[in-house]
Amino acid sequence: MIGIFDSGVGGLTVARAIEQLLPDHSLTYYGDIAKTPYGPKSPETIIKYSIHNTEFLLDKGAELIVIACNSASSVATETLRKRFHVPILEVISPAAQRAIQTSKNGRIGVIGTRATIKSGVYEKKITAERPDCTIFQVACPLLVPLVEEDWLNKRETKMILRRYLHPLKNKQIDTLVLGCTHYPLLKNLIQARIGKKVNLIDSSIETAHYVKDFLIRNPSVISKSKDATHRYYASDSTEAAIQVAKRIFSRPVELIVI
Amino acid sequence: MIGIFDSGVGGLTVARAIEQLLPDHSLTYYGDIAKTPYGPKSPETIIKYSIHNTEFLLDKGAELIVIACNSASSVATETLRKRFHVPILEVISPAAQRAIQTSKNGRIGVIGTRATIKSGVYEKKITAERPDCTIFQVACPLLVPLVEEDWLNKRETKMILRRYLHPLKNKQIDTLVLGCTHYPLLKNLIQARIGKKVNLIDSSIETAHYVKDFLIRNPSVISKSKDATHRYYASDSTEAAIQVAKRIFSRPVELIVI
Repeated sequence: MIGIFDSGVGGLTVARAIEQLLPDHSLTYYGDIAKTPYGPKSPETIIKYSIHNTEFLLDKGAELIVIACNSASSVATETLRKRFHVPILEVISPAAQRAIQTSKNGRIGVIGTRATIKSGVYEKKITAERPDCTIFQVACPLLVPLVEEDWLNKRETKMILRRYLHPLKNKQIDTLVLGCTHYPLLKNLIQARIGKKVNLIDSSIETAHYVKDFLIRNPSVISKSKDATHRYYASDSTEAAIQVAKRIFSRPVELIVI
Repeated sequence: MIGIFDSGVGGLTVARAIEQLLPDHSLTYYGDIAKTPYGPKSPETIIKYSIHNTEFLLDKGAELIVIACNSASSVATETLRKRFHVPILEVISPAAQRAIQTSKNGRIGVIGTRATIKSGVYEKKITAERPDCTIFQVACPLLVPLVEEDWLNKRETKMILRRYLHPLKNKQIDTLVLGCTHYPLLKNLIQARIGKKVNLIDSSIETAHYVKDFLIRNPSVISKSKDATHRYYASDSTEAAIQVAKRIFSRPVELIVI
């Protein structure tokens, strides 16, 4: 069974993409809504929560863990890999890989939470493989609350996006990594503001492809199950979370609060 | 010793007001930055955290607990009073009292987090004493992230405030309760948008007066100490939190991370 965790419901964009690509696999999701958001918190705190979330998923029978949160992927992957003996996949490498393949001029933008941007992990991963690349990073801490408030079409959201994207506008980037699992919900707004010619990299979709490729290369990691089950656990339930989940799946989603 | 807890650093507005009114008292603050914000979370989760925070303060020797968070005051006060045998003071009653005394026309606005507004606690407390009052409530969930991002003077913050306050504009309110410990930092912006004639009730200041009055009436609650010490603990430390703390105290504040 594939175990997926996130700081809240944003990571459901990853779960949904995996379900669409791997419909025959069972999947258990854990959203840490009671402590959301992770993005503004310290690495130590994010690591502590990530260990707890992984233990929960292993208890439920996970044979593979997907960290569906850019903030947790940025700061906790190494610790989780040392501590647990199942494969730990994360959302940064797949998005970084796609950016490396996509960019022609080597000028790549990255937007994300404070934790993700401060870790510099996208820059490290991209320039390790393509030292010719120049990375322009912007932390966009207000985008997660705006998405969670369902303010997707509000004028203020568009203005805040314009302000965040402004430093990237004159950098001639041809590729922009959406380095937070909430941002795919703002894709159209971002595209309109950064320009049609800029390729947007959606870390959720890239991660789903990466998980699929990983399982093709390592088929024995996951034991076969007759019926694929999808369960979504959460450490809290709120109306806003239920709304965001519904928007991601285009249908109501049952969150099991534990 | 007075123990004060909050979901993060917003409650430092209460701590500072208490320190100014009661400079001879020792005070221990606990800000639950690792799980902030409480406002969008469920009552069950907020109660669980509030019990933990109170136990921490009692361990440190608190003889009186002040819940310096409107969300926690709204949903957790009753549970804490049943469970712990020290006086538990909160921020709602003092602000509600002041609103009752201040309003002439009985039309009172309340702004706060989702948890506070959904609980309806201000309305219950005010109309219990003054059934002639009509209460107009608006949840303003984005104000806490905006304050924590230090976006106090940004155009977007002013627009968002205008949008939140709009439903109150034609209600002829003469009094507006700032029902969240972060909102005093937006006082001038709120006053400018709601109108000069509307009295703003700052729950932080009202709570400090209430604590002072309580200790005059119940002097034996707090044991005398020779030197007043002020300690600020937090469950996490972030740059944004340190900045907000500094803004509230107009000086750097040492947060002890535990």
